[in-house]
Amino acid sequence: MSLPALNLAIVGLGNVGTGVARILTEHPERIVRRAGRPVAIKKAVVRDLTKPRDVQLPAGVLTADLDSVIKDPEITVAVELMGGLHPAREVVLALLAAGKDVVTANKALLHEYGDEIFAAAREHGRTIAFEAAVAGGIPIIAAVGQSMSANQIVGLQAILNGTSNYILSEMLLHQKSYQSALSQAQALGYAEADPSLDVNGTDAAQKLGILVQLAFGTKVPTAAFHVSGIDKLEQTDIQQATALGYAIKLLATAKLVDGKLQMSVRPTLVRKDRPLAQTHGPFNAVLLDGDVVGSVWYSGRGAGQLPTASAVTADIIDLAIGRAQLTFKQLDLWGESSAVPVLPESETYSRYFMRLIVEDRPHVMADVTDILGRNNISLSSVIQPEAPEVEATAGVAQVVPLIIMTHRATTGQIASADAELAKLSTVRPGRVLLAVAD
Amino acid sequence: MSLPALNLAIVGLGNVGTGVARILTEHPERIVRRAGRPVAIKKAVVRDLTKPRDVQLPAGVLTADLDSVIKDPEITVAVELMGGLHPAREVVLALLAAGKDVVTANKALLHEYGDEIFAAAREHGRTIAFEAAVAGGIPIIAAVGQSMSANQIVGLQAILNGTSNYILSEMLLHQKSYQSALSQAQALGYAEADPSLDVNGTDAAQKLGILVQLAFGTKVPTAAFHVSGIDKLEQTDIQQATALGYAIKLLATAKLVDGKLQMSVRPTLVRKDRPLAQTHGPFNAVLLDGDVVGSVWYSGRGAGQLPTASAVTADIIDLAIGRAQLTFKQLDLWGESSAVPVLPESETYSRYFMRLIVEDRPHVMADVTDILGRNNISLSSVIQPEAPEVEATAGVAQVVPLIIMTHRATTGQIASADAELAKLSTVRPGRVLLAVAD
Repeated sequence: MSLPALNLAIVGLGNVGTGVARILTEHPERIVRRAGRPVAIKKAVVRDLTKPRDVQLPAGVLTADLDSVIKDPEITVAVELMGGLHPAREVVLALLAAGKDVVTANKALLHEYGDEIFAAAREHGRTIAFEAAVAGGIPIIAAVGQSMSANQIVGLQAILNGTSNYILSEMLLHQKSYQSALSQAQALGYAEADPSLDVNGTDAAQKLGILVQLAFGTKVPTAAFHVSGIDKLEQTDIQQATALGYAIKLLATAKLVDGKLQMSVRPTLVRKDRPLAQTHGPFNAVLLDGDVVGSVWYSGRGAGQLPTASAVTADIIDLAIGRAQLTFKQLDLWGESSAVPVLPESETYSRYFMRLIVEDRPHVMADVTDILGRNNISLSSVIQPEAPEVEATAGVAQVVPLIIMTHRATTGQIASADAELAKLSTVRPGRVLLAVAD
Repeated sequence: MSLPALNLAIVGLGNVGTGVARILTEHPERIVRRAGRPVAIKKAVVRDLTKPRDVQLPAGVLTADLDSVIKDPEITVAVELMGGLHPAREVVLALLAAGKDVVTANKALLHEYGDEIFAAAREHGRTIAFEAAVAGGIPIIAAVGQSMSANQIVGLQAILNGTSNYILSEMLLHQKSYQSALSQAQALGYAEADPSLDVNGTDAAQKLGILVQLAFGTKVPTAAFHVSGIDKLEQTDIQQATALGYAIKLLATAKLVDGKLQMSVRPTLVRKDRPLAQTHGPFNAVLLDGDVVGSVWYSGRGAGQLPTASAVTADIIDLAIGRAQLTFKQLDLWGESSAVPVLPESETYSRYFMRLIVEDRPHVMADVTDILGRNNISLSSVIQPEAPEVEATAGVAQVVPLIIMTHRATTGQIASADAELAKLSTVRPGRVLLAVAD
């Protein structure tokens, strides 16, 4: 191999950055074989030079001075692993302007500033590689941008947030409460101290946005589709779904319906024998439907030091080979196109699971089903679990759960029915309404 | 887009060839967008010009004359979709010598003549792209050669033969006999008139050989590892496995054990809650274990017109972009290397499922378990289903099934115990011995 080494800078030597540095320094012969030339870490930019690191780097590599990267023309590729929006945006723009190709695992950055960053890359004739930004260990960017290139993708269903999936798995497999599963996820490092963006669906929605842009060439802001999280689920929902033959997953979906895009991120009932329902713990999964190949299914660890570092390193190798440059040129991404319109949320449809707490008295069932019927929602099953016989207390109504599975209905129909149900004095507050996957 | 069209020849316009021609002719705008330039079918070489075709091609494209491709310097890429070994080998060598890059879906050809064909390609500075040759709709060549490039693959488990998997799924889900499931597979076109190579494990073994060469850089002849098929399985095996919590799958496995490769293709019990056990019908599945990323899982249709055509077309697009050329240059394939030795079959180990038919008389269980014990095989469970009480007939011994699950044992230990069991007068012929997946 006579090709010169690729000189690399890593900007941000946290968990993932350390993982990348370790792969490159501990397996140099592997990297040469796969990349066709050595990859040398010339600089690793950190904030705190005194902090102990889990990786051995030669003297002079560690630096707090980003300018030593920007001004070094021998460094042709930089890996942005700082995370967050600022100064990540400014750093990436400066790296591109200085003529470096950039690898990033920063999903929030691409979601927020993808337009600007991709335009800057094109302007400077540079490449952005970002396989690690969505679904870490799953090569989903390669799948959509390359392996399925003969297809129009017509649908995708995905589990994209490992924290939520870990919590749901614990609730399902170990009958934990939401709160105790969340605490355990935090203890194990699967959830942040402030887990809001993970458990309220925002993180999955941002990733879905990137996938949709790749798969459908359309930029859809998070506000344009339904996003809800798992933070309102209770153990009883998991149990009721199980009894009906379903698992509950935080599902990100997008599909073409009569030329329009129906998208959502929400807790969804998935039939137990489907692979999505079998995706447990910190794993992510993506099911792609192509108009030629049919369904193709991917699963792997969605985040974490090594899965993410594996994806980042594959991108570095792709840049060393020259393949990432060709891929980036062809990517139909963050362009001006917006060919596929998004279906307004009220027109999207799904089957639904409803859990109501109702008073155990005559005619309640008739009132509830009358409201659904008048909204043209037809029922596929109704379950009122047998209530224990209790001594009636004067003036206190006994309450019982009522589980309803509907046939397909639009979000508009469901919202209208739900508003009417809210007015029934015999239906208690705290109605649960979950989508059911096709 | 100012790039000139890529001029293509399709050699063999059967089922898959027709699929490729239809994708290219029916979606030209899609191809231009993904490939950066048009892809024009300049020639389609067939044996019978008069046969009706399911695709519209311009006048002059259809030809019976391979030389019209060989001698046309404007045709830079040829797709070999004749199948079989001859004349496919000679055609591919002639195409390479004439300076064409070659796309092929011909797994048997690569298995038999991969060395020669890859050497010829390198000699002529040409590229072979073969994503469609293994696991059709699953981009497994890209996964191993590109997406997991930061990893040493340490293990793989795969369902690679769609025919066998269809038959096993029918036996499991619809309680069919082996023979009736096979007939149905033939009626649906999932099995050939002579299904031997599919159901006896040969097809899966050839595909495993190609995957192992990609993943471990080692060429292993099919004769160097255990290969058996599903053709001896009975409905009762499926049922007994189900009762124990397992599905039976024709599993192709390879893993590194202390620097040696343990490989096999055989019917294997897989725990029901594993995704491999949930892979039904004509679907293939591949589970890869990387030393950095951990487990990554792929599933999709393994064969058939459109899944295979989708993979072939993605390879054509990759050649149009120039990406396939870079990938081929880096592939550590069909070289002289044979770094990883293969563990001799007698030293490979597994857990095992044994089904014996034994006489229902005193001391039989003790005799059987004594033999296993003396061969150092320890048992994880023994089930003798309760036999119906029947009137004893003088001179006729009642027989009952005996199901034994063992802990880990080598193939040598198991073979030795099996030979001893064969000599017991109380054990009937027709012993079933199946591996159990880790």
